[in-house]
Amino acid sequence: MSEPYTKEKIIQMRKKHIGPSCKVFFAKDPIKIVRAKGQYMFDEKGERYLDCINNVAHVGHSHPEVTKAAVKQMEVLNTNSRFLHDNLVQYAERLTATLPEKLSVCYFVNSGSEANDLALRLARQYSGHFDVITLDHAYHGHVTSLIDISPYKFLQLGEEAKKEYIHVAPSPDTYRGKYREDHPNPGAAYAEDVKNIIKEAHQNNRQIAAFIAESMQSCGGQIIPPPGYFQKVAEYIHEAGGVFIADEVQVGFGRVGKHFWSFQLQGEDFVPDIVTMGKPIGNGHPMSCVVTTREIAEAFGATGMEYFNTFGGNPVSCAIGLAVLDVIEKEDLRGNAIRVGNYLVELLEEQKEKHQLIGDIRGVGLFVGVDLVKDRQQRTPATAEAQHIIYKLKEKRILLSADGPHRNVLKFKPPMCFTKEDAKMVVDAIDKIITANNSQEITNNLPANACRPQENGFYSENIPVSNKRIRTK
Amino acid sequence: MSEPYTKEKIIQMRKKHIGPSCKVFFAKDPIKIVRAKGQYMFDEKGERYLDCINNVAHVGHSHPEVTKAAVKQMEVLNTNSRFLHDNLVQYAERLTATLPEKLSVCYFVNSGSEANDLALRLARQYSGHFDVITLDHAYHGHVTSLIDISPYKFLQLGEEAKKEYIHVAPSPDTYRGKYREDHPNPGAAYAEDVKNIIKEAHQNNRQIAAFIAESMQSCGGQIIPPPGYFQKVAEYIHEAGGVFIADEVQVGFGRVGKHFWSFQLQGEDFVPDIVTMGKPIGNGHPMSCVVTTREIAEAFGATGMEYFNTFGGNPVSCAIGLAVLDVIEKEDLRGNAIRVGNYLVELLEEQKEKHQLIGDIRGVGLFVGVDLVKDRQQRTPATAEAQHIIYKLKEKRILLSADGPHRNVLKFKPPMCFTKEDAKMVVDAIDKIITANNSQEITNNLPANACRPQENGFYSENIPVSNKRIRTK
Repeated sequence: MSEPYTKEKIIQMRKKHIGPSCKVFFAKDPIKIVRAKGQYMFDEKGERYLDCINNVAHVGHSHPEVTKAAVKQMEVLNTNSRFLHDNLVQYAERLTATLPEKLSVCYFVNSGSEANDLALRLARQYSGHFDVITLDHAYHGHVTSLIDISPYKFLQLGEEAKKEYIHVAPSPDTYRGKYREDHPNPGAAYAEDVKNIIKEAHQNNRQIAAFIAESMQSCGGQIIPPPGYFQKVAEYIHEAGGVFIADEVQVGFGRVGKHFWSFQLQGEDFVPDIVTMGKPIGNGHPMSCVVTTREIAEAFGATGMEYFNTFGGNPVSCAIGLAVLDVIEKEDLRGNAIRVGNYLVELLEEQKEKHQLIGDIRGVGLFVGVDLVKDRQQRTPATAEAQHIIYKLKEKRILLSADGPHRNVLKFKPPMCFTKEDAKMVVDAIDKIITANNSQEITNNLPANACRPQENGFYSENIPVSNKRIRTK
Repeated sequence: MSEPYTKEKIIQMRKKHIGPSCKVFFAKDPIKIVRAKGQYMFDEKGERYLDCINNVAHVGHSHPEVTKAAVKQMEVLNTNSRFLHDNLVQYAERLTATLPEKLSVCYFVNSGSEANDLALRLARQYSGHFDVITLDHAYHGHVTSLIDISPYKFLQLGEEAKKEYIHVAPSPDTYRGKYREDHPNPGAAYAEDVKNIIKEAHQNNRQIAAFIAESMQSCGGQIIPPPGYFQKVAEYIHEAGGVFIADEVQVGFGRVGKHFWSFQLQGEDFVPDIVTMGKPIGNGHPMSCVVTTREIAEAFGATGMEYFNTFGGNPVSCAIGLAVLDVIEKEDLRGNAIRVGNYLVELLEEQKEKHQLIGDIRGVGLFVGVDLVKDRQQRTPATAEAQHIIYKLKEKRILLSADGPHRNVLKFKPPMCFTKEDAKMVVDAIDKIITANNSQEITNNLPANACRPQENGFYSENIPVSNKRIRTK
């Protein structure tokens, strides 16, 4: 390319050549990013943005160790897994070593969507059943079979878009859900709901192949399942002949700090039957993985049907995967997630003392959600206020998103090299934005181009939201 | 890694950690490949293999221009398409310029499977219908929705594996199918079958969303559709309110030489509604694309549901895609495909004169199939003989596969830098193998470890095939 394109030119070319369903962040004034390093992204003018959202750039944007590993392998060989290669088995060994022993068999694929789809195929073949129990507000990917199990998506098409073989269980949300923090045992209560769904399915002569859930719901609003929930669900699902699929696409690879996998937060007595991985696994390189038990893998293999994935498990992807694991260890990114995550939550708790707008703070490691409310008693979601904060932060060159069914949960999932200084910077900025509104310095606080939030919590359409002033104490 | 693994060690580790459905080439004696360049692959002992099968390494294994483009971009930025970036739009513009004008809107995804699945979603949303017409022996990918439309796969599970919303049309095979080279208009006749399928579907109150076919069937046995077939099918499918999906995952990007896309072999009066791409697009890098019309893209966008693909269209993938297009042009690989492809067919025709075993040679550019028969009159597939040749070629360090429903079609789809010398080498080797058998120099010609061929035409299971001697004239 001779001359770089202006933003206007890119927008015009996108309109011509990119599907209109493919949205950009901040549609009215999108950001052109030309380079990124660590937790920072830079636009075409050299302006630096603090990145609090890109969980794919897990070990930091453009990490030199990852690039080095990719180049080294690309220079000599990139081919499919029907040939023997060291990288595939070395990576499989390293990856399974991070998991409980019974999760020992890998299938390497190219995306979280491919991983979740394969997980369903494994579950259906193993169980001989077809139906799936999924959580309300769940998002598991963009291929046909996954839109089916993603209420976050299919409900946009109307209630009737739910297929008869899909059963939606309540999200185990103890802040906003049916069993809350004042319930004596919300984990058991939410699991009981799953049990009842199974019972009803059986009454209708339906058989359950799988329960699938993110180990912590991400798009669903940063929901951390209450203690004992997964154990109980697994018990019920196994009784029904189905399997438990833990979707770690967004929340795996040490993001929670203390554990390598988020499902491990539920305790050592819980082991899923299938774990799916994605986003951070290759620090941006298209790759992912499904890990399961020997028993399920054998049942899938018993049909004799080959599973061949053209790109999955190629030597370059595996080299990159190994480099990512190395960097997580070498740079103690899990330790960093604990330290910085705890500090971030501390700072946010201080803000909660100060601002009534902050209803709930929930998170582990560098996966933190801030639930904004118009009213602490009613917990009315403060959607417009969340959008306003996101927008104002963008002006201050900080990238944050809002998600959850009401798009009112500020969502932190930064690269794992995020620092305490970064945490301080973003929380200070949020404080200033809320305070400014609170003190009525800005009355018409929503920008003229404020618009409907999308999946990512960013403005993306020219649909104005209400112009209400943010209420804080 | 300190020490490279032995083949035995890798096999043992694969048994432990890789799904048993993931097969290797030549299961009884798999090949460990440690490096590759151009059309050659090298094992751990430095032995060179001539590669006649890897259509993914399209511009040649480990092409330095592709690696350079990848590194250059990886060093500065790899992020998602919600940010504006030059590479995405530049690549979309370059790619659509290779296609008829109305195919102008791109969706970038990670694999041929993701592409074909999205094509189905587009077709279903646009048409408001659900059913799909697919060809017999077709393979379109490994995700749930594509196993459904792949008789090559689902028939392995029994006839009852066919879903009621899938309709299988005969493969337009003029050598082995119901209308052959002696039919006055096989294209119209095969299209008439599709018309009748539509009629029957309508009688059963079913509505057709799409007809999907590879522009030339690959796994199906290197089938080149007869003239006028796609035009007629498109006419019927449009009348039914459905769309025509051309799957170019295996056969696109100039492999046929004269055209950039294989569907263009049918003539300028045929334009599909959706084209899917894959394998060669990134020379091994996991990426792919769906291109469609403005009208279909708008219909898909009209639901308001965002389509977000985490890795799809990232700056690194697009940089690689651009480099692949550059190399195809700079090195005149389409010209090479014509020259070497024609020469390869000439050499094979000479062999056909010599050996009764060769029943049919069909191909365009560097996509050539040799249909082996036990008997030219009956056209009885010479499956065991094809497997024997493949196996013997491997001993001679030449990688070729056999495919098609009977696994009797020798399948050439080498990197596009394949030379006339390479073509001569492999055809000479085939000649020697057939001649040796013909002259009964080898009586027990199938090796002790001969076994059942898989999708790729390679031995992969320890199931002996019959020990018949190859019959040639």
